[in-house]
Amino acid sequence: MQKIGRSAWMEKRKPGAGPLDAVCRPLAVSACTSDVHTLFEGALGERENLTLGHECCAEVVEVGALVKDFHPGDRVLVPAITPVWNSLEAQAGFPMHSGGMLGGWKFSNVKDGVFAEYFHVNDADGNLAHLPREISVVDACMLSDMVPTGFHAAELADVQFGDTVLVIGIGPVGLMAVAASALRGAGRILAVGTRPVCQEAARAFGATDILSYRDGGIDEQVLRLTEYRGVDRVLIAGGDESAFAQAVRALRPGGCVGNVNYLSAGDAIGIPRVAWGVGMGHKRIEGGLMPGGRLRMEKLAQLLLWKRLDVRALSTHVFYGWGHLEEALLLMRDKPRDLIKPVVVLDE
Amino acid sequence: MQKIGRSAWMEKRKPGAGPLDAVCRPLAVSACTSDVHTLFEGALGERENLTLGHECCAEVVEVGALVKDFHPGDRVLVPAITPVWNSLEAQAGFPMHSGGMLGGWKFSNVKDGVFAEYFHVNDADGNLAHLPREISVVDACMLSDMVPTGFHAAELADVQFGDTVLVIGIGPVGLMAVAASALRGAGRILAVGTRPVCQEAARAFGATDILSYRDGGIDEQVLRLTEYRGVDRVLIAGGDESAFAQAVRALRPGGCVGNVNYLSAGDAIGIPRVAWGVGMGHKRIEGGLMPGGRLRMEKLAQLLLWKRLDVRALSTHVFYGWGHLEEALLLMRDKPRDLIKPVVVLDE
Amino acid sequence: MQKIGRSAWMEKRKPGAGPLDAVCRPLAVSACTSDVHTLFEGALGERENLTLGHECCAEVVEVGALVKDFHPGDRVLVPAITPVWNSLEAQAGFPMHSGGMLGGWKFSNVKDGVFAEYFHVNDADGNLAHLPREISVVDACMLSDMVPTGFHAAELADVQFGDTVLVIGIGPVGLMAVAASALRGAGRILAVGTRPVCQEAARAFGATDILSYRDGGIDEQVLRLTEYRGVDRVLIAGGDESAFAQAVRALRPGGCVGNVNYLSAGDAIGIPRVAWGVGMGHKRIEGGLMPGGRLRMEKLAQLLLWKRLDVRALSTHVFYGWGHLEEALLLMRDKPRDLIKPVVVLDE
Amino acid sequence: MQKIGRSAWMEKRKPGAGPLDAVCRPLAVSACTSDVHTLFEGALGERENLTLGHECCAEVVEVGALVKDFHPGDRVLVPAITPVWNSLEAQAGFPMHSGGMLGGWKFSNVKDGVFAEYFHVNDADGNLAHLPREISVVDACMLSDMVPTGFHAAELADVQFGDTVLVIGIGPVGLMAVAASALRGAGRILAVGTRPVCQEAARAFGATDILSYRDGGIDEQVLRLTEYRGVDRVLIAGGDESAFAQAVRALRPGGCVGNVNYLSAGDAIGIPRVAWGVGMGHKRIEGGLMPGGRLRMEKLAQLLLWKRLDVRALSTHVFYGWGHLEEALLLMRDKPRDLIKPVVVLDE
Repeated sequence: MQKIGRSAWMEKRKPGAGPLDAVCRPLAVSACTSDVHTLFEGALGERENLTLGHECCAEVVEVGALVKDFHPGDRVLVPAITPVWNSLEAQAGFPMHSGGMLGGWKFSNVKDGVFAEYFHVNDADGNLAHLPREISVVDACMLSDMVPTGFHAAELADVQFGDTVLVIGIGPVGLMAVAASALRGAGRILAVGTRPVCQEAARAFGATDILSYRDGGIDEQVLRLTEYRGVDRVLIAGGDESAFAQAVRALRPGGCVGNVNYLSAGDAIGIPRVAWGVGMGHKRIEGGLMPGGRLRMEKLAQLLLWKRLDVRALSTHVFYGWGHLEEALLLMRDKPRDLIKPVVVLDE
Repeated sequence: MQKIGRSAWMEKRKPGAGPLDAVCRPLAVSACTSDVHTLFEGALGERENLTLGHECCAEVVEVGALVKDFHPGDRVLVPAITPVWNSLEAQAGFPMHSGGMLGGWKFSNVKDGVFAEYFHVNDADGNLAHLPREISVVDACMLSDMVPTGFHAAELADVQFGDTVLVIGIGPVGLMAVAASALRGAGRILAVGTRPVCQEAARAFGATDILSYRDGGIDEQVLRLTEYRGVDRVLIAGGDESAFAQAVRALRPGGCVGNVNYLSAGDAIGIPRVAWGVGMGHKRIEGGLMPGGRLRMEKLAQLLLWKRLDVRALSTHVFYGWGHLEEALLLMRDKPRDLIKPVVVLDE
Repeated sequence: MQKIGRSAWMEKRKPGAGPLDAVCRPLAVSACTSDVHTLFEGALGERENLTLGHECCAEVVEVGALVKDFHPGDRVLVPAITPVWNSLEAQAGFPMHSGGMLGGWKFSNVKDGVFAEYFHVNDADGNLAHLPREISVVDACMLSDMVPTGFHAAELADVQFGDTVLVIGIGPVGLMAVAASALRGAGRILAVGTRPVCQEAARAFGATDILSYRDGGIDEQVLRLTEYRGVDRVLIAGGDESAFAQAVRALRPGGCVGNVNYLSAGDAIGIPRVAWGVGMGHKRIEGGLMPGGRLRMEKLAQLLLWKRLDVRALSTHVFYGWGHLEEALLLMRDKPRDLIKPVVVLDE
Repeated sequence: MQKIGRSAWMEKRKPGAGPLDAVCRPLAVSACTSDVHTLFEGALGERENLTLGHECCAEVVEVGALVKDFHPGDRVLVPAITPVWNSLEAQAGFPMHSGGMLGGWKFSNVKDGVFAEYFHVNDADGNLAHLPREISVVDACMLSDMVPTGFHAAELADVQFGDTVLVIGIGPVGLMAVAASALRGAGRILAVGTRPVCQEAARAFGATDILSYRDGGIDEQVLRLTEYRGVDRVLIAGGDESAFAQAVRALRPGGCVGNVNYLSAGDAIGIPRVAWGVGMGHKRIEGGLMPGGRLRMEKLAQLLLWKRLDVRALSTHVFYGWGHLEEALLLMRDKPRDLIKPVVVLDE
């Protein structure tokens, strides 16, 4: 990214590693909708000569003197969010906000991202994880952001055994929110989205009902389907700020909304006063950036290793070689019918 | 209340007790702002010939055949919220919403309230509590609603040791939110309100800083006082729906808003998008009706019994005899300088 | 059960229903190991002329005047634990201890059980649940005790995404603990048991490793398999009190033991001092009777309805008619090679 | 400490600071019972030429190149527990076990302690906190271990509004457990201990009843005082492993035991089977080392700053100069009648 709207390959100096850090080279990378937002819509504001990309797996090339658990040649999982672990925010349980709100998001935001021959990782011991050989480099890319973000929605909304769950948005993050709901013991899962390839994947990941924005208000559809009892949880992984009003109306008292969607426009999110129980309905509203770091990667990798979760359906388009990166990025912008997620493999 | 805006004494039949229920006569009653809202502003919609009042302590006059722990002549604490305890909502941990959102609120809402010679209590064993003799009938009235509601704000916002807490509104509920914050281990407590009698009480209950709406935006004042770090928790016990935007701006990532204020106007509560971390700032928003029922009364009564909490400062105006009830109600509407809460004692 | 060691059919008066209660007739019943303990070992102490049985589904025959949601002819799920919902214990979140520790366990303990033409259910609205027509009467019996007890182990141990879980005991409750761990997002699940029919079922429900008591100490086997890191959670659903010492040794700091096993002998459970971090290792120890009641039944039935959980593998032996009940009971005592659970169907 | 049973001053090289570390010199130090255990009883096993001490406040003398928030000359709070913050254990919420169970305890255990002219602090930004000028160096020493450990007991046992709490042991940690219970909203607080100076302090910190081991079993005394209902929480800050059996017997179903006491002898802690509900009584048992690190120090310092907690009563004996250190240590061993805690001030 040279500036908003213009991307190109640039020569940059190979980054160096501080005492706690690592330099890595990508084995595979994946493009994210937020890369598209950053580049074409300027969602983060102007950025000059910023390297994009925050989804990849990689090989360690260099480590700092204090790094203990990683060595050059190690194959690693790389989380999109790389917190500063001794920060007050991390100590308080919110590493993703280390150094300020959303401060754990560094790649392709406040420093160069992973769409480069080499990239820098702060706190290698705290933020990298060994890539198990049973996990392909393509699947590993899904662990950077799609899996942890979608799973965080289920954590924020606190899905419990037998709950009826509404998932708004079934792009790759929403699909992982569906999978996470099923893996936390949800009963019925209603998923909202229109693209057939995503609807099919949603069913495979555990959705029991597919709703479409085109068939009227989501809240009304949900209330009708649940005999006007509403749902126990709403996971928001798509749509715009109006999703919150629909979520609150579709929710039972005592339920919870968990948002992981980046809200890119509007001044305010409106919570409908009466449906929110005139302030007293116990409809909790949570929204949060995914946790990053090593433990999170290791835990989620366990789900792939032990075959609880199969993410292969996400990577609908796999390319080989850096030459296809721009194509992958444009796919993510244009979203053809059969796309869920494009991955570019550089070295298996 | 005969209809909106008109109140009078009426003859009604003495209520009877079903198998689980009790009939009681008040020993002391207290007027609540929500009685004022109901009567003069029609906050609950039109109500005809509804007996007002939901704050009192009482003597049991009659009990149903299945009531085990209460007998005629027993002096009892009476919660404003009287859930149906075998409901699905109560089983889910939200008894205040038994039978539908806010359904635990019965007195002066869906049935006659306590401003009467006799009133009916559903599920006596589940909803009454014995009044310890060490607690005066005046203080006991504070346990119906002011104490449990204010304390619920601290629970919703999950105040922890050393937290910096902002309490918006220092009417009687807000004062109890201040006291509850101090009793949950808060460090600094910033309280917002303008009436001198309330400011003085807030300091006595544990507020360290008093802010006024008149000195500019609450969020800006708070950020300035906290060196722009913001607060850990915001308890909303007053103001209107704009309090939420200020709360979210004043709050750190990882913090929590706990609302117990009845929001009487407006279509929607606006959550500022950017200050809410574009949806990902981990600023939790909770709002809930106080839990009711017997255990809650017993637990909070312990705080008075063991002198952890002294509520005497709340009842600034104490009257004797039913004849003063209307005066108490009008005081609550007009809020003279020295008023926090009026209580009418009927029988000590 | 006439007395310890002697069982027979007896004539008893058909029970009547109080205002909140129901009388039901079983559609299918299942025998539980605890029936065997009660009858042959006197685990509950002497009981004279006690009707055994606490697992069944049923048809409502009669309801009390205050029962709202159930009517004669309704087919219902019946939980083994039937709390008193307005008790202080239920209000505190522990309905299974209403009226005293374990007080929610009434059937075949403090009152006649379900191995009878008619049985009594306290608080029908709070404790029964409608039996969905998609669930067979055989599967419905598993929802009385096996499913909720096994699932409670996963709740007590607080299984999280990617956790490594050890399940000690793979009788029917332990198998449901395995299933529950998988459904709460566990990664690796190590299950301990020796009977081949159970081992096979454990794998089908999600176990990744099967351990046997015969191959040495469980703790040592677990430590070896996990490269001496230990497991995140231990669910105890079998064995004796020595299982706790093994569990604590196999557990990482920050982990949790969740016991649902009835401990029938010994004075004390020994927690090894050093492995428990000389008191400071953050290895939490929980043990609890399953929650009962209507909501729980409805939530768990959702898992069957939406095909998250298939319990058919549990009921290895299905009989038809009361005449086979004793045979079922003896099967449960003698545990032939191919038995997991016997069910007696009375009326489909 | 030269070896078990022998202490002396030794010449050692001044420690150096790694890139993240600091070297500090104590402003005041306090002796802890565990120093006594280590030295005279060999509680940690043999240690040769180990500098004792883990309670102090200090001045920063030197910082590593990556330290951002501390500079030579800064006056700092120093926690007894100094975790490695990017460890997997810290990421899981258990920093005190970073690098293995109890691994966050470094001072006077696996490295030299603070009874020295200079001492080394790992991860200065993560583990030190600025000493507010309003807090005396004597009070600051109480924040190293006594306050955070005692307060952790209340967190482990999850004290809630109105709870009845039993605190076993009223040495300085137990006194802080009493104070923490009051500050988390406990109602009645029963404290167990025999030394008059501690009993008096316990009352001042919020105990409502004082029990003595000499008056019979603690459990029986507690049951009698609570009309055989038992207590909601037990905090163990003294006694030996038999305290657990008493705690479990004194506890209600649904209650919790929180231990912070170092258990120095015995193979196992015995949990009484029947009183523990034959495994199903929902009497949770927790035990844990205090959390350390900077945020914890800052939060607890807020309690002193805003006058929620006054720890002056703990430091009954204040000395000036290193020359008095051995005297302080011997006081801690011999525990004269009027001692709670000795502090040695080196530089105010």
